Amino acid sequence: MTSISIIGTGNMARAIGALAVAGGNKVEVIGRDQSKAADLAKALGGSATTGEFGAVPAGDIVIVAVLYAHVVPVVVRYGDALAGKVIVDISNPFNSAADGLAIPDDTSIAQEVAKAAPASASVVKAFNTIFGVVLAQGRPLDVFISGDDAQAKGAVAEFIESLKLRPLDVGGLKMAHWLEGTGLVVMGLASHGVGNYDFALGATVPG
Amino acid sequence: MTSISIIGTGNMARAIGALAVAGGNKVEVIGRDQSKAADLAKALGGSATTGEFGAVPAGDIVIVAVLYAHVVPVVVRYGDALAGKVIVDISNPFNSAADGLAIPDDTSIAQEVAKAAPASASVVKAFNTIFGVVLAQGRPLDVFISGDDAQAKGAVAEFIESLKLRPLDVGGLKMAHWLEGTGLVVMGLASHGVGNYDFALGATVPG
Repeated sequence: MTSISIIGTGNMARAIGALAVAGGNKVEVIGRDQSKAADLAKALGGSATTGEFGAVPAGDIVIVAVLYAHVVPVVVRYGDALAGKVIVDISNPFNSAADGLAIPDDTSIAQEVAKAAPASASVVKAFNTIFGVVLAQGRPLDVFISGDDAQAKGAVAEFIESLKLRPLDVGGLKMAHWLEGTGLVVMGLASHGVGNYDFALGATVPG
Repeated sequence: MTSISIIGTGNMARAIGALAVAGGNKVEVIGRDQSKAADLAKALGGSATTGEFGAVPAGDIVIVAVLYAHVVPVVVRYGDALAGKVIVDISNPFNSAADGLAIPDDTSIAQEVAKAAPASASVVKAFNTIFGVVLAQGRPLDVFISGDDAQAKGAVAEFIESLKLRPLDVGGLKMAHWLEGTGLVVMGLASHGVGNYDFALGATVPG
């Protein structure tokens, strides 16, 4: 059982929150719009609670599930309230054509979060290669993760396993740049090769 | 039936060549070392032939299966001999730590090949997210491809289908940069999350 806080009330927040409740985790939902957070917590059921935006989150793992441009500002706004937390960045900083990243080449949102967060916090990139609509179906997907802190990565992996998903480590936080790039490939597949949003990347040998 | 030429005699050349022969395609093997090319053509059996390095390749599709640093020099060396051909770049320009690309951020080996090739040639990125050892197993893997020329991409897709593999278009040639980055994620999975080379990325919804 992991205690998590989800900052955000969109599709990914809802999908992760639902799986987290089903997996027996303690879930806190936080939104800048308190009523939306309360609505989502109610919809999630279980023991889901609502937290106050900007206050110290109840969860040991804090999943920042907001649009990419808001991720670092949210972390900055929280400041020392995130001390000691494991911060999970799930964002996809796509440019408008979805063929490049809307951030400099030598970084990633996850790495920028690590710069902005308290030194005692750890950052893990996860979930960004999965569509919320697919995640919501509750199938056993692969979740690619990266991060520099092995203990934090282990905690996130354990949480992911509680969702009946398979965590797959791709390396250090620098790899978050390439996971964000892999997010672009997933989008490219959805709009070209596969042509829908009913799939996920997996590490398998079919056949 | 597609007529292809493979420049290179390594593991990927062998794996693609074997599947191509099994799929009923016409296969020419070309190597800077002519005897190695002849050995591979013999090993492939079927109607596989050996071509002369630098001469006009027999195949309509030319697969450049050499180490990444040699890809552009080979294309430059060929020059007009590649006029009208569909050039397939399968390379992975990894840095020594395999957490970044050994080329500038705004390009890819495939895009550099397009700059170096004759104007009448087309370039398609393909196969770089698959380990040769897995490809050699003959299982029905997903092959991610990108390119700007729809006709060339269609020809490569048809060839890939003859190998009993599934071609999945991720978009224009600019996406080759992110396919090369996805190659890094595959390597990261092999050395961390999966811990072996017995898998491939696929676009699936398991369960």
